[in-house]
Amino acid sequence: MRTAGILGISGYSGQELMRLLGRHGQVRPVAIEKEAAIGGAVRAHSLQVVFLATPHEVSLQVAPAALEAGARVVDLSGAFRLKDPAVFERWYGMPHTAPHLLGEAVYGLAELNGEAVRGARLVANPGCYPTSVICGLHPLFCAAAVDTAAGVICDSKSGVSGAGHRPAANTHFVEVHENFKAYAVLRHRHVPEMLQALGVSLGDFFFTAHLLPVTRGILSTMYVKLRRAWTRDELLALYRGRYPDGGFIRVRESGAPNLRDVQETNYCDIYLTVDESGTRAVVISCLDNLVKGAAGQAIQNMNLMLGLEMNQGLV
Amino acid sequence: MRTAGILGISGYSGQELMRLLGRHGQVRPVAIEKEAAIGGAVRAHSLQVVFLATPHEVSLQVAPAALEAGARVVDLSGAFRLKDPAVFERWYGMPHTAPHLLGEAVYGLAELNGEAVRGARLVANPGCYPTSVICGLHPLFCAAAVDTAAGVICDSKSGVSGAGHRPAANTHFVEVHENFKAYAVLRHRHVPEMLQALGVSLGDFFFTAHLLPVTRGILSTMYVKLRRAWTRDELLALYRGRYPDGGFIRVRESGAPNLRDVQETNYCDIYLTVDESGTRAVVISCLDNLVKGAAGQAIQNMNLMLGLEMNQGLV
Amino acid sequence: MRTAGILGISGYSGQELMRLLGRHGQVRPVAIEKEAAIGGAVRAHSLQVVFLATPHEVSLQVAPAALEAGARVVDLSGAFRLKDPAVFERWYGMPHTAPHLLGEAVYGLAELNGEAVRGARLVANPGCYPTSVICGLHPLFCAAAVDTAAGVICDSKSGVSGAGHRPAANTHFVEVHENFKAYAVLRHRHVPEMLQALGVSLGDFFFTAHLLPVTRGILSTMYVKLRRAWTRDELLALYRGRYPDGGFIRVRESGAPNLRDVQETNYCDIYLTVDESGTRAVVISCLDNLVKGAAGQAIQNMNLMLGLEMNQGLV
Amino acid sequence: MRTAGILGISGYSGQELMRLLGRHGQVRPVAIEKEAAIGGAVRAHSLQVVFLATPHEVSLQVAPAALEAGARVVDLSGAFRLKDPAVFERWYGMPHTAPHLLGEAVYGLAELNGEAVRGARLVANPGCYPTSVICGLHPLFCAAAVDTAAGVICDSKSGVSGAGHRPAANTHFVEVHENFKAYAVLRHRHVPEMLQALGVSLGDFFFTAHLLPVTRGILSTMYVKLRRAWTRDELLALYRGRYPDGGFIRVRESGAPNLRDVQETNYCDIYLTVDESGTRAVVISCLDNLVKGAAGQAIQNMNLMLGLEMNQGLV
Repeated sequence: MRTAGILGISGYSGQELMRLLGRHGQVRPVAIEKEAAIGGAVRAHSLQVVFLATPHEVSLQVAPAALEAGARVVDLSGAFRLKDPAVFERWYGMPHTAPHLLGEAVYGLAELNGEAVRGARLVANPGCYPTSVICGLHPLFCAAAVDTAAGVICDSKSGVSGAGHRPAANTHFVEVHENFKAYAVLRHRHVPEMLQALGVSLGDFFFTAHLLPVTRGILSTMYVKLRRAWTRDELLALYRGRYPDGGFIRVRESGAPNLRDVQETNYCDIYLTVDESGTRAVVISCLDNLVKGAAGQAIQNMNLMLGLEMNQGLV
Repeated sequence: MRTAGILGISGYSGQELMRLLGRHGQVRPVAIEKEAAIGGAVRAHSLQVVFLATPHEVSLQVAPAALEAGARVVDLSGAFRLKDPAVFERWYGMPHTAPHLLGEAVYGLAELNGEAVRGARLVANPGCYPTSVICGLHPLFCAAAVDTAAGVICDSKSGVSGAGHRPAANTHFVEVHENFKAYAVLRHRHVPEMLQALGVSLGDFFFTAHLLPVTRGILSTMYVKLRRAWTRDELLALYRGRYPDGGFIRVRESGAPNLRDVQETNYCDIYLTVDESGTRAVVISCLDNLVKGAAGQAIQNMNLMLGLEMNQGLV
Repeated sequence: MRTAGILGISGYSGQELMRLLGRHGQVRPVAIEKEAAIGGAVRAHSLQVVFLATPHEVSLQVAPAALEAGARVVDLSGAFRLKDPAVFERWYGMPHTAPHLLGEAVYGLAELNGEAVRGARLVANPGCYPTSVICGLHPLFCAAAVDTAAGVICDSKSGVSGAGHRPAANTHFVEVHENFKAYAVLRHRHVPEMLQALGVSLGDFFFTAHLLPVTRGILSTMYVKLRRAWTRDELLALYRGRYPDGGFIRVRESGAPNLRDVQETNYCDIYLTVDESGTRAVVISCLDNLVKGAAGQAIQNMNLMLGLEMNQGLV
Repeated sequence: MRTAGILGISGYSGQELMRLLGRHGQVRPVAIEKEAAIGGAVRAHSLQVVFLATPHEVSLQVAPAALEAGARVVDLSGAFRLKDPAVFERWYGMPHTAPHLLGEAVYGLAELNGEAVRGARLVANPGCYPTSVICGLHPLFCAAAVDTAAGVICDSKSGVSGAGHRPAANTHFVEVHENFKAYAVLRHRHVPEMLQALGVSLGDFFFTAHLLPVTRGILSTMYVKLRRAWTRDELLALYRGRYPDGGFIRVRESGAPNLRDVQETNYCDIYLTVDESGTRAVVISCLDNLVKGAAGQAIQNMNLMLGLEMNQGLV
């Protein structure tokens, strides 16, 4: 039984890490109470891995200390996701204070970067919206199938736990219940992550976030133009090749895409359809923002880093 | 005080008509209990106007009888919205049994067709999704501003009352609550109505419906490419010109688009933004599917037909 | 058109006062921005009435100033509801700083104290839970029908707006949604108000508050033993005598007691049943905590104070 | 690995049985598709145990056949819970067609009847409301602590899954959402079960059911008079003696009683308080109606019947 440290257990991601590791079977969690004590905690508990379930400002400060103390780090914030510190500064409104780590940081979407994750000292766990969008579109981009000039449209809807644990006007029950709203239209902080992973330019990419009156889940509906006509079966075959059975990304052939099927799981479900011409695809992905979109994916990364089965403790 | 008949008061639209007319001030509602008795009811109550809050199969049968008995008709179903009976047959899966009325039927979106509504004998009240989409995009199409070949994307989310009053698996509380799903992707029955009103071809138009765990409201997020660069102020000016102050379509300059602002009102709120290049617009519209999307809009049409103030009983 | 001042428009009760007075017809609202300026506001606007939608600590301070400036006051807090300042101190944990006003303060439950409200300078608007409980039980207590020694049980369930507008852990959507809890068992601050109005002693009275995952409404289920056997018809007649048709308390003979029927109205619905022996009654009352439980009742009181129809602007 | 049959997998209890047995570890589920084939299924699969997740009318018919084929039966309906067939007939409105089985049927509340469950051929799994009420009050009744003549008040609130899977007016999302109602006041079919288990007479027992806008959970608030004064510590000691640590009934000393803590678990949480006099107790119990109130408790019973650990597959 190994031990993993968690900094930030008061937030939803931290709580979910505690819950999931509590039943992991091969790794047990230990809470790190204070940011300043992270180096000591790593040494005292001989922690091989530390999860940072902290805001990006905090992660920027403590990740170097944790690494220096000898731990490997899975950071759930946006601190190390963007390769270019200038892009970070533009979207996060602050200079990047640990740019020397950006080179080695691995973007922790295991279905894309599994090998790199295995050997990483520092994993930048993807954002919840980016996970849903990238998992949904990556096979098409890998196959160079998308006519990006026609615009890549990502319309995403998230549950309230994505807005965090701290009470605020926009998470008050009375504000959210029997309501629905769009926010951060074309300017959500998660956009550059998606651009970087898919290799699209900002001018071709349109992302809108919406707040659903549910606790858990993200459903993203994506619209792309294809460079040639595809049948639905060809598209399904493309996705199945990229996401084989037995992994956490499930390519669904029928049924209505819905959150229920993925809540409290580490699965990302993907549905596909194509119009009559075969040149317009609609891709819908669903996941639980706290699991595949945060804590579950972080554990998936940890499993790879520690040489365990990728799905240990997650199914 | 005039009297308007309502057929179909057991459904949500019929109930909402009863509720709204109950406080209208100049027209009071009378329920018509039986379809077969509509002609007699028109004559007995000297009804000038009859609302058909009935399925399209029923409306097809009773609209001619009501017209023949001397009433003017506002039909809330899809029976008379499509000009081409062949299109009707393709999307509704049945032949149109009263094609002789399609010529005179007026599509009851008063902000577009106000004059025609005033003089109409038969008004086809728009569907809830089409109202949200058409109100949101019409100014751009009128101005020939849209590059339709790049694709017109309409991502709509509706509350459960849009699925009707009859208990069904997909409206069971346990199925809907803490869930969210997409349905009828690219093949919703409301699509041809939108094509007809906007003058777009099916190959360029992508509509996805989603079911929100709320009772009332539709929010549609629409993405279009423009034929030239526009500033946000130019777009706002275009919309304000088309939808002047004091009407039911409100062009909002700030704030987050959300259902709360329009629930239980006849307003349709519209928000706009444009990307840095000025050639990609995102338009978001919100309305209450039972009011502006059904009963409220029907009364708005009735007001025009009877020579009343358009907003009588609706504000 | 008269003008009424409102202090505290940022909270739910203040907002509801603004909304309801906005359509009142004979009185229009003016917001008073600062507590310290209340005297000046009364004189500047010649306000006959001021609503205090403020915490009790604030009401204690500003009520005397408003009265001195010549306004009549409807206070929505608990500051002036309890006649005995020692009881206030015990339940509110602070000394009463304006005990000289307690003698003239009228408990603003118009169905019980209508005459006194009419002539009052200072009305203490009842709490939301007490309104539901007192309306539900008062006819039985007036008729000396209750065997209080057997225990008076009041099991109340309230929507989240009752917990106030300020974001807090217990009003976070994620905490409330798909949850239900009891709180303040036997020690809710509203208890002494109920004791005072019904003339029961604390030892015989058992009140439990619960938090419902809804925005608006209180449903109280009350269980009492009767001193003699009553038929259900006798009980209905007793309640109908006390609450005649046309008022805001509706004695319902059938149907399931539910919040929907009273939300966004000033009605309090009451349902009754009695066991086979006729000596045990169950009384269920429903109201909207922001209307009959707060702002609506406050306006009802204002109407009486100004010599208007009691239901002006409320139906 | 043993196999257990389940009849009735289309309902919520049947689905929950499938889900929980799917991860049980020592028993795997097999669905029995047709009532008429139950005997054959028992023999074909050598089923030691069959769960009947069926309406009482069906259970009455198939339980004898399953027993005769050699299986032991856990029936989740009300068919075999009441010892007296006349009481069954009065509350269920039909004659009992298998009264010869009532003598051997064991009421499957393992915390009360564990030994009898172990040896039973036929277990009548308790109703969801009765489980919450009986677990909450049984220690007091065992200790003869309750003054029943003063009335035993049980105010219960249940989530919608308790109303079953079949779409109906009262489970329509629009009817339930942002609503709350009482139903079956003093005449719920679960009442005689509670009377039988606690040994109270109908004249002293007052049960009200309410429908919460949540999917899962029951919270029951119970009020009783005690025959002598107790301190809260004495009561806690009484309950802890009856429900030792490590079982499924958890006596909680602090915190707000709430559904969240028990949802998707087989736990029943119990909170206690007593008034100043020490003679009035309020007991609050929470459980998940589909787990401890149905499928989980059924598996708990099966575990005992098969000689497994009571909590196998349930924690």
